[in-house]
Amino acid sequence: MTTQLEPTAIAEDVLSSQTMNGAEQLVHTLIGNGVDVCFANPGTSEMHFVAALDSIPGMRCVLGLFEGVVTGAADGYYRMAGKSAATLLHLGPGLANGLAGLHNAKKAGSGIVNIVGDHATGHLKLDAPLTSDIAGLATPMSHWVRSTQNANDMERDGTEAVAAANGRPGKIATLILPADTAWSQVATPRTSFSTLTRELAEPIDAAKLEAAARAARHGESTLLLLGAGAVRGDALDWAGRIAAATGCAVMSEFYIARAERGAGRVSAPRLPYAVDPSLALLKRYDRIILVGARPPVAFFAYPGKPGVLSAPGCELIELAGTGHDHEQVLRALCEEVGGLKLLPARVVNRQVPEVGEGAIDGPGIGRVLARLIPENGIVVDESLTTGRGFDGLTASAAPHDWLTGMGGAIGFALPVAVGAAIASPGRRVLALEGDGSGMYSLQSLWTMVRESLDVTVLVFANRAYRILRGEFENVGAGAPGPRAADMLSLERPELDWVALASGMGMPAARVDTLSALNAQLARAVADSGPSLIEVILP
Amino acid sequence: MTTQLEPTAIAEDVLSSQTMNGAEQLVHTLIGNGVDVCFANPGTSEMHFVAALDSIPGMRCVLGLFEGVVTGAADGYYRMAGKSAATLLHLGPGLANGLAGLHNAKKAGSGIVNIVGDHATGHLKLDAPLTSDIAGLATPMSHWVRSTQNANDMERDGTEAVAAANGRPGKIATLILPADTAWSQVATPRTSFSTLTRELAEPIDAAKLEAAARAARHGESTLLLLGAGAVRGDALDWAGRIAAATGCAVMSEFYIARAERGAGRVSAPRLPYAVDPSLALLKRYDRIILVGARPPVAFFAYPGKPGVLSAPGCELIELAGTGHDHEQVLRALCEEVGGLKLLPARVVNRQVPEVGEGAIDGPGIGRVLARLIPENGIVVDESLTTGRGFDGLTASAAPHDWLTGMGGAIGFALPVAVGAAIASPGRRVLALEGDGSGMYSLQSLWTMVRESLDVTVLVFANRAYRILRGEFENVGAGAPGPRAADMLSLERPELDWVALASGMGMPAARVDTLSALNAQLARAVADSGPSLIEVILP
Repeated sequence: MTTQLEPTAIAEDVLSSQTMNGAEQLVHTLIGNGVDVCFANPGTSEMHFVAALDSIPGMRCVLGLFEGVVTGAADGYYRMAGKSAATLLHLGPGLANGLAGLHNAKKAGSGIVNIVGDHATGHLKLDAPLTSDIAGLATPMSHWVRSTQNANDMERDGTEAVAAANGRPGKIATLILPADTAWSQVATPRTSFSTLTRELAEPIDAAKLEAAARAARHGESTLLLLGAGAVRGDALDWAGRIAAATGCAVMSEFYIARAERGAGRVSAPRLPYAVDPSLALLKRYDRIILVGARPPVAFFAYPGKPGVLSAPGCELIELAGTGHDHEQVLRALCEEVGGLKLLPARVVNRQVPEVGEGAIDGPGIGRVLARLIPENGIVVDESLTTGRGFDGLTASAAPHDWLTGMGGAIGFALPVAVGAAIASPGRRVLALEGDGSGMYSLQSLWTMVRESLDVTVLVFANRAYRILRGEFENVGAGAPGPRAADMLSLERPELDWVALASGMGMPAARVDTLSALNAQLARAVADSGPSLIEVILP
Repeated sequence: MTTQLEPTAIAEDVLSSQTMNGAEQLVHTLIGNGVDVCFANPGTSEMHFVAALDSIPGMRCVLGLFEGVVTGAADGYYRMAGKSAATLLHLGPGLANGLAGLHNAKKAGSGIVNIVGDHATGHLKLDAPLTSDIAGLATPMSHWVRSTQNANDMERDGTEAVAAANGRPGKIATLILPADTAWSQVATPRTSFSTLTRELAEPIDAAKLEAAARAARHGESTLLLLGAGAVRGDALDWAGRIAAATGCAVMSEFYIARAERGAGRVSAPRLPYAVDPSLALLKRYDRIILVGARPPVAFFAYPGKPGVLSAPGCELIELAGTGHDHEQVLRALCEEVGGLKLLPARVVNRQVPEVGEGAIDGPGIGRVLARLIPENGIVVDESLTTGRGFDGLTASAAPHDWLTGMGGAIGFALPVAVGAAIASPGRRVLALEGDGSGMYSLQSLWTMVRESLDVTVLVFANRAYRILRGEFENVGAGAPGPRAADMLSLERPELDWVALASGMGMPAARVDTLSALNAQLARAVADSGPSLIEVILP
């Protein structure tokens, strides 16, 4: 990878005269390049890295009891902090357990310095039990992979790993560290670093900008579809001004790494998940302008249904991919359509719905969320079937951030909530989780308790892989017989999320009415620290 | 891979006249080739396979709530059943979550037909979120990888996958199934199959056999080191006769996929885990005969310590690797040393130790196990630091099987116990688990309850990654400071395994004295069904 860096004043690099082993050199290199959080599940080969935490101040190290917690937390951290954390994993199997989280992070454009310990270089030929092809495992889920072969290369490799991770968009940079590179002495230790700069954004394509402006002027038959960095901050405001100038529609992708939404912000509703409503919606548009978004496609293929969701003949203008500065691109488009001085259109007003009485259902939960998502809250959403209506129901909540799964690997919400909370002290995180999907990464609760994170976990307990019941029919498999139905049910035995949370030291409550949910959630967001609410769905 | 098959009478293969889709063809192919258990965590792309379970009798499908449960269970199943199960995983991230279990299974020589669903072939080019390089992910942990491209190839690919998995030793055969190969109709369905035969064992090397016999005749300065299939059944008896004829020592590797041991059997103590005691023990031997075992090496490298554990100048005779028939090899060696008619040496007598009073420690737990491991019981051992003395302490227990981790990937014991129990109805399984390692795969408890498996889980709660405290010093990192110590501690918050078990519907109790442990374990092994005992260590 060649990384073009923004010009910057280069500070004098200081070489230390102290002795230092490779692990200490790596910790200095990370901190010196701005990486000061490490999510870790270490083993023997990583003990020198762990030891270095005591001798070198400035690195916050957060333990996860499973590697999926570690990589998912690094994803959530990047989304909120806008910079990379490090991970610390134990050889091939430790990496393997974290790969699903890396997959999600890669699709989210989250940068991670993914550090994987390995056997000492001389030990590999003995093929001890933990030996495996770590680089081979890492490659499918990484943008950059390197195995350091000498402690003296540690500073160079660590610096390049951080540079790769801080690409635009963020990248997965996997740095494999044989144990002897960690414990061997470094010939010329370095403890001071110039601050690493960020990769330059891709330039705006003038022809595409002109085509986009032309399309936008068609008004309501054109969709401005936002993704990546376009769904927040000034970028979103420019999108609202483009809508004000042209009358075009503004939406965002179904999958969003981080969207700023709620009262006072420009509304950019998410595309639906399912194929049929997406087709019905997108057939209104003859032109789609993509800014940080990709052409809309079906999540899965279904027999007899299209994979491309835009209408046949629809013009797709890929104005900006994920490597652009989306605020810059949308400002340029806004200028092109003469909207710079306008007030943004589609700005949301705060509305506080009545919760109502009665049994819990998706719309009811949505109303509770619309009331209680706190200002500046962060919602991590893996609510799947339960949450299909949340986008509309919570559009007029207090201003907040909304994070969804990006790679489709299940169980992302609890780990991502860990990282988002570490990155955002003082902000309440709500993790919306299914009872099935939560089981993939329930170890996250322990880390939330250990770090006293302000996370409220809502587990929607429908006691099924409910989404698969629909998918069973969608793929043309008919109605499930008893043996198939058994594979989609979580009723035998029932999960008790209050007990599971309690087993990891987390206060928890169970609710089965909307008013109880409202009361519990109101209390949870007002308190500090983590807690869990199991929401029983009929 | 070229598989040489044992000669067999080929039955007439019957072509069915019914219509059948690819998924149904695969289920028929698996069952027809003797694969009748499937451990599964399916998603949308696997729904036709799930649907086929209803229309085709004969496949037991066992749901896991995390993919590490699925692959670990398939490992345990193979070890006890001696034949491959299938797995069913959901695209790249589902495979990724199961890779650590596949790593362990690969190192154990366990065969698995590892089925991974993929997007429909035409959908891949759209790069939907779940798209990843599945073959690339599978390759490091597989012996055989194929992506089926057409439903009409399903029967051929399924048959070859089973043949690969049933190699000698067992292999990881990863079969990737694009969704359209599952839902498309098969042109010429097949529902009847000739029974698949087993790969021929490697032939005995006559020169090595002679060298081994010469070495064995040196008596006590020679070690007969057993692994793989050599630590059970008639193979072990022949080893005892070789010892009777020559006076050579008999031991087994520290890592054993399945050892038969206890009263009435030939004793083959396991090598120690740690480097120093291994070196001290192995320096007694000038010659080591390896049967199913590999040359002893250190699990990790440590600064200033050797990786090869046999004494300098020790002669290593690799008589049989994992691809041999170990009973055949040991019988041949026995014949060569004139031991065929002797009674085996080193046969263990049953001894029932007193438990004693007082606080719980490793030796005390070992005594309880020696009393209470039931005849024909199966012990799956991930007790790590707590269990360092169990090998000696339980040597004279009632006859039983002992299974350990083979690849060093943590959290194997609970999933392997699931599979071992499915393979061994009527036999009690004891899973010896650490509180740290158990957290990697605690979802296994749910499957144990769902399937009413006769598994007793003992969780040894020392509230630390205790093994790493020792490793920290072993690798020369000194004594952990407060920040390093925090990375090795599970005290903040304490895990409550009784609550965790209860959350998955499993009866559980906590004990903190030896007599309470003895009472609870006695009750658990006498009952049917699963339960958990949290053993609090001081």
